[in-house]
Amino acid sequence: MPKTCSIDYSDWRLERSSSIALYKQIEHYMKSKILSMEWEAGARLPAQRKLAKQLGVNRSTLVAALDCLTDAGFIEGNSGGGTVITDMAHRVDSMSPILPNWNAYVEEGSHYPNLPIIQTINNMEISPQMIRMGTGELAPDLLPTKEMEKTIRGAIDHGISLGYEQPLGHYPLREQLSKQLSEQGIEAAPNSILIVSGALQALQLIAAGLVGRGSTMLVEKPSYLYSIHAFQSAGLKMVGVPMDQGGIQVNALEQYALRYKASLLYTIPSFHNPTGTVMEQDRREALMNISNRIGLPIIEDSAYEALWLDAPAPRSLKSMDEHGQVLYVGTMSKCVCPGLRMGWIVGSQQVIERLADIKMQMDYGSSSLSQQVAAEWLRSGLHEARIQYIRAQLRLRRDFLLDQLKQHWSSFAAWRVPQGGFYIWVTMDKSIAIEALFKHALACGILLNPGYIYDRSSKHQLRLSYAYASFVEMERAIQLIAKWVKNKNVIER
Amino acid sequence: MPKTCSIDYSDWRLERSSSIALYKQIEHYMKSKILSMEWEAGARLPAQRKLAKQLGVNRSTLVAALDCLTDAGFIEGNSGGGTVITDMAHRVDSMSPILPNWNAYVEEGSHYPNLPIIQTINNMEISPQMIRMGTGELAPDLLPTKEMEKTIRGAIDHGISLGYEQPLGHYPLREQLSKQLSEQGIEAAPNSILIVSGALQALQLIAAGLVGRGSTMLVEKPSYLYSIHAFQSAGLKMVGVPMDQGGIQVNALEQYALRYKASLLYTIPSFHNPTGTVMEQDRREALMNISNRIGLPIIEDSAYEALWLDAPAPRSLKSMDEHGQVLYVGTMSKCVCPGLRMGWIVGSQQVIERLADIKMQMDYGSSSLSQQVAAEWLRSGLHEARIQYIRAQLRLRRDFLLDQLKQHWSSFAAWRVPQGGFYIWVTMDKSIAIEALFKHALACGILLNPGYIYDRSSKHQLRLSYAYASFVEMERAIQLIAKWVKNKNVIER
Repeated sequence: MPKTCSIDYSDWRLERSSSIALYKQIEHYMKSKILSMEWEAGARLPAQRKLAKQLGVNRSTLVAALDCLTDAGFIEGNSGGGTVITDMAHRVDSMSPILPNWNAYVEEGSHYPNLPIIQTINNMEISPQMIRMGTGELAPDLLPTKEMEKTIRGAIDHGISLGYEQPLGHYPLREQLSKQLSEQGIEAAPNSILIVSGALQALQLIAAGLVGRGSTMLVEKPSYLYSIHAFQSAGLKMVGVPMDQGGIQVNALEQYALRYKASLLYTIPSFHNPTGTVMEQDRREALMNISNRIGLPIIEDSAYEALWLDAPAPRSLKSMDEHGQVLYVGTMSKCVCPGLRMGWIVGSQQVIERLADIKMQMDYGSSSLSQQVAAEWLRSGLHEARIQYIRAQLRLRRDFLLDQLKQHWSSFAAWRVPQGGFYIWVTMDKSIAIEALFKHALACGILLNPGYIYDRSSKHQLRLSYAYASFVEMERAIQLIAKWVKNKNVIER
Repeated sequence: MPKTCSIDYSDWRLERSSSIALYKQIEHYMKSKILSMEWEAGARLPAQRKLAKQLGVNRSTLVAALDCLTDAGFIEGNSGGGTVITDMAHRVDSMSPILPNWNAYVEEGSHYPNLPIIQTINNMEISPQMIRMGTGELAPDLLPTKEMEKTIRGAIDHGISLGYEQPLGHYPLREQLSKQLSEQGIEAAPNSILIVSGALQALQLIAAGLVGRGSTMLVEKPSYLYSIHAFQSAGLKMVGVPMDQGGIQVNALEQYALRYKASLLYTIPSFHNPTGTVMEQDRREALMNISNRIGLPIIEDSAYEALWLDAPAPRSLKSMDEHGQVLYVGTMSKCVCPGLRMGWIVGSQQVIERLADIKMQMDYGSSSLSQQVAAEWLRSGLHEARIQYIRAQLRLRRDFLLDQLKQHWSSFAAWRVPQGGFYIWVTMDKSIAIEALFKHALACGILLNPGYIYDRSSKHQLRLSYAYASFVEMERAIQLIAKWVKNKNVIER
């Protein structure tokens, strides 16, 4: 008696909110079961009606999946009118072609896939109807389209070069950045600056080029860094250091560094992502002292530094760095526009040369066009005026969202007023199930960023962003969620 | 009696051709000796005059290095007028700051540094006086500056978007590519195409995302792939399969695949880099049969495919790929311009989605601006005319270089006429020392790409490129080298 194939819900379920069609998901699942030999040759599939019911899909959806598998030679009808698994294992040695088992390859690479929830968020962000309440980007109407078009025309008038750039990046851009950094108290020669494709690539290069597998990196807890896999994929361990409203707890830091033999600290001292926190001046000084004393290099992520709303943050760690302990990462993505993919790393020349070498291996340099446009943008003087405009707009948006929260969420959530950046870190009442809230919201066209993306133990938090959604959308989302909470649609079960 | 520090020439020497200043090289070397404790605290440096002579540098160069080390606290004068190593080991626990040991970090990352010779080439390529006889780029006067400026203005007129693009890349660009690929016999929906930052990034993503550490990849021997570290850094082993003038030896391939349990084959079937070879039609068919039969996926690098000079290459492997075995990598860098950093991967949707996910983690997508300009370029119809122009120019250049070789190198070198692409693979007489030739040429302002970059056993080969150097430069380089060879300046010792 041949075995019957059964769906194992312990390791899989249909992602109804995914952008991948349901029939494709079923096809992939069944293919993996067959290729892994869990479903053996000759085993029978349950009857279509029964299987469709089990899966909770229309019979036509199931039939579409089965048709694909039949065409690929994975299943076939048997004489009794049922459907059985074909003998894939034997086909490797036969003359007939087999499908390459890309499934196995997809699971095998050394680079981790994004968390399923982040894949879902990446995919859903494309959808134009979505209200994106967690998105860390400026809204389309906050992007300097007209100014940038003018800048691009200006760059063309100065003559565009279409070849490769130097390993460190377009020299005039590095000169402009050197000037700008100097105004911020950071003395960095153009040869101490590496141009990269956004701050994320900066982190990738540091992970690939400077830190050995098995090393430990300290990060703030929570941290944006937990939402990406740059460092874990490079074989690094991340250890979270607690923070409070004054930033990372410097008193704890030294113990953590010694106990875990940490190789590096990654920090976002100004307008932290996701919590919006600003590290206090005295903590910054204490941090630099510890770093110098115990030899703990620092990656300082300055993505939001220019976007202060009430008062500038205390001076950057890099500006206090007398001994080359700090690698300073900057970007135009958050304060100008992400589309140029423009970021930079400032550090000692030796480190910058090593990172440039890795960058040459990774993509042979960033878009020359983007680099020339970025240089023209900084040269044009449009930059400072633009930042001031963005600050004013973000201030209005922050205040609006805070007002909405106060009106509608006060009874079940708490938050602090961020002094800059994009985010409000909201702690919800423990009775609210964040996972259920995320799904319910998604089904209603609202995309949220749950706190656990940034720290597994942040089970009751949301990262709200006031940078992307429109005023009307923010209002709608906040009020709808308040309604669900009050109707107990999203309680912990 | 304290020990005396001695320079160990077995593991280090000054790179006089490096762009890093000599004093910096000395400083780095000494720092590494001190930090590694090979030079112990209290050990004496030799007298300056003696040390300068040993190193073969001016005393002022040495003094500059020693000054840096003194400032950093690594060395100090002693009462006897000599110079000794300070007690660095104790300073970790003291209150005084230590320099971060970035040296150690620089050597520790999981990503391999470029080969020293490739670093030298990358650095020397910047130098405007250099005659670049091996460079795999179009000469600046072959770049479509005017046309691209027109294209950029056209893109602005259609409206530039400055936000992030979709994970797979700018949709209209993928549509244009899908159309273009269809004309080449490759049916690929926009959702089967991932936009990347040049073909090199395509390889990085495949290495990081699809192949497990310890896997084996087959490549042609020699291969461009040996000159980059994408796959070795991801923990892959590369095994070279012999090739002849008809391309990879397909008869040997299956044995190699089985013996080494190969996971993948990387091939450049059309106008191979570095040899210029075209894989014959019947080999392509045989290759696809083997790939299907034994389940060996293929990465097909099509960088030079459009650049045929006498006749088009046989149809691409991807166009014969009925079972999704082939990942097809394309780029605009070789046939249009490298500055846009525009490349793409075509494959099954499942694989493309996985690679897109990794790409989102690496740099959150390629420059939106570059992507929009590339889409406008393909839409404008300028592309095909441009390719025809480039073919005509490359034909002239190839014929000129071949003529020079015939006139001046016939007595000591051999080569085949390439039917397309950028390169002539020259085999020199065994009496000529390629390493000495490389250095002698570099000192005279001529940059060569020795064959061993592409295959360690290609000890007597050069990859000459007719794409970059001017006619005058090619003439000068070929004649100078002929003179050295005839004067026995570069013979094997």
